Amino acid sequence: MKIPNANKDLLVVGSVAYDSVETPQGSVEKALGGSASFASIAASYYCHPLVVGIVGTDFEDRHIGILEAHGVDTRGVERKEGKTFHWRGRYHGNFKERDTLETALNVFESFDPRIPPDYRSARYVLLGNIAPSLQMKVLDQAGDAEVVAMDTMNFWIETARDELMAVLRRVDLLFINDEEAFQLTDERSLVGAAERILNMGPRYVVVKRGEYGAVLFGSGLQLFVPAVLLRAVVDPTGAGDTFAGGFVGRLAGSGELDRPGLAEALLCGTVMASFAVEAFSVEGICGLTPEAIDSRRAGLERMIRI
Amino acid sequence: MKIPNANKDLLVVGSVAYDSVETPQGSVEKALGGSASFASIAASYYCHPLVVGIVGTDFEDRHIGILEAHGVDTRGVERKEGKTFHWRGRYHGNFKERDTLETALNVFESFDPRIPPDYRSARYVLLGNIAPSLQMKVLDQAGDAEVVAMDTMNFWIETARDELMAVLRRVDLLFINDEEAFQLTDERSLVGAAERILNMGPRYVVVKRGEYGAVLFGSGLQLFVPAVLLRAVVDPTGAGDTFAGGFVGRLAGSGELDRPGLAEALLCGTVMASFAVEAFSVEGICGLTPEAIDSRRAGLERMIRI
Repeated sequence: MKIPNANKDLLVVGSVAYDSVETPQGSVEKALGGSASFASIAASYYCHPLVVGIVGTDFEDRHIGILEAHGVDTRGVERKEGKTFHWRGRYHGNFKERDTLETALNVFESFDPRIPPDYRSARYVLLGNIAPSLQMKVLDQAGDAEVVAMDTMNFWIETARDELMAVLRRVDLLFINDEEAFQLTDERSLVGAAERILNMGPRYVVVKRGEYGAVLFGSGLQLFVPAVLLRAVVDPTGAGDTFAGGFVGRLAGSGELDRPGLAEALLCGTVMASFAVEAFSVEGICGLTPEAIDSRRAGLERMIRI
Repeated sequence: MKIPNANKDLLVVGSVAYDSVETPQGSVEKALGGSASFASIAASYYCHPLVVGIVGTDFEDRHIGILEAHGVDTRGVERKEGKTFHWRGRYHGNFKERDTLETALNVFESFDPRIPPDYRSARYVLLGNIAPSLQMKVLDQAGDAEVVAMDTMNFWIETARDELMAVLRRVDLLFINDEEAFQLTDERSLVGAAERILNMGPRYVVVKRGEYGAVLFGSGLQLFVPAVLLRAVVDPTGAGDTFAGGFVGRLAGSGELDRPGLAEALLCGTVMASFAVEAFSVEGICGLTPEAIDSRRAGLERMIRI
């Protein structure tokens, strides 16, 4: 199946935020973060992302500049009196655990996603990891989309399950990690959980397994791509958003939704996520050359070639 | 590279034991177990295993019969006055944890592996997960072997590191799980740990990651095969031994040690391990049809085909 997308537009709705992060490798203060930032930069290597988000008056021009330098359309990023969403966290135990030290929603609390008229023709949509009620508002405005993918997390499964289920019924693809898949379905096997999720609405589900890779289920397919084996992880923040951005970006850029297209999308998401975790904030995925991307993709593909 | 092996002999040295196991799925009492049992049955689908081990006078003929029904040569299994090695364990926490309740070495305590003269011409050898000092005794008798693979575990890393290092210098391939690889090398990344291990002697190291699959490193290669996605695990006992048996069995049966041969060996080890964990004791890998094996292999290969 191919869903042509002449202008390669991908609508990305999510958070644009400041992250203060401490890991065993160092720390950053108020660095660019948020699901929409990671996802749109990752997607920019494959398609033309249009971002909808909200920032405060403290948001620096140079941070909008980072997105724009990657060809991301930021006209949909609303600027509002107040402070930008700020998350502070600390990783420890060799990245196995993460403590959230502070979540200041700030202007994000009043986020009411409005899709600019000329964004509405986007045939590909990525609903970043935000409240299901906000994701639903986007769905109501992006009726022309043919492929809608969404991300979510344990917090929404625990606090907004009904709204989440309602969104799930209307999307084509769900990104979720393995623990969240078990939590959402009460299943204990990946196969069982995937089956249950496919019955909730999406045609496809991509289960992220962190350093072990990701598996796509749907349309009778099981596709697996391992994570890139890295010597050192610096900061895993945004890895999931980046994976989703690379994956859906490849779909939007190529229009290929058949088996080879989906396998390639898995590779693209995986490669992007591998770059993301090698540096703080969005640094690892900024300014990548086609050669660097291709080389990592080729190494990954070679690793699983029988 | 091809190392011809006309008679497809594979010498397997390890424990032949009785296991009493309790898992969330049920329990068994004094069922056939031990590294040599799992490995030789798994290998039997690809080559001709010759087993060296020791059992007590309580060991039942029907258990030797299980090995022989799979074409395993058991003349090297010594029978000695006393009781057979008995292990009792319990799995819990969705198989994440295992308690050893009893380890009665019994006759295994005096195991002094003697390789029968007509076993000594085996060009392929698998040193099962036993004390490095015993593995060394086998090496001293199996000088004609061209490919020697070994398995090990955390217990030997902690209690017999020097002997283990001496054995490592003389083998071609090491099977080890990820945590043990980190423990052995003081590295935190798989790539770093593999590099260190390759500097210790082996040409190849296969890092087992349980439900996530296995990675082979060596000769400039990185090869990855994910685990088969199963609906339910019944008993993981012996999964590592089975993996090693399937892997080395494929090498011994085909003589193919080039890239495609090694990739195929990873598939064979993975497929065998997937059958093993679906039942207690060796039941899951007994009497498998070529069709059942091929079908599972094909599904696995399809899952990673780009």
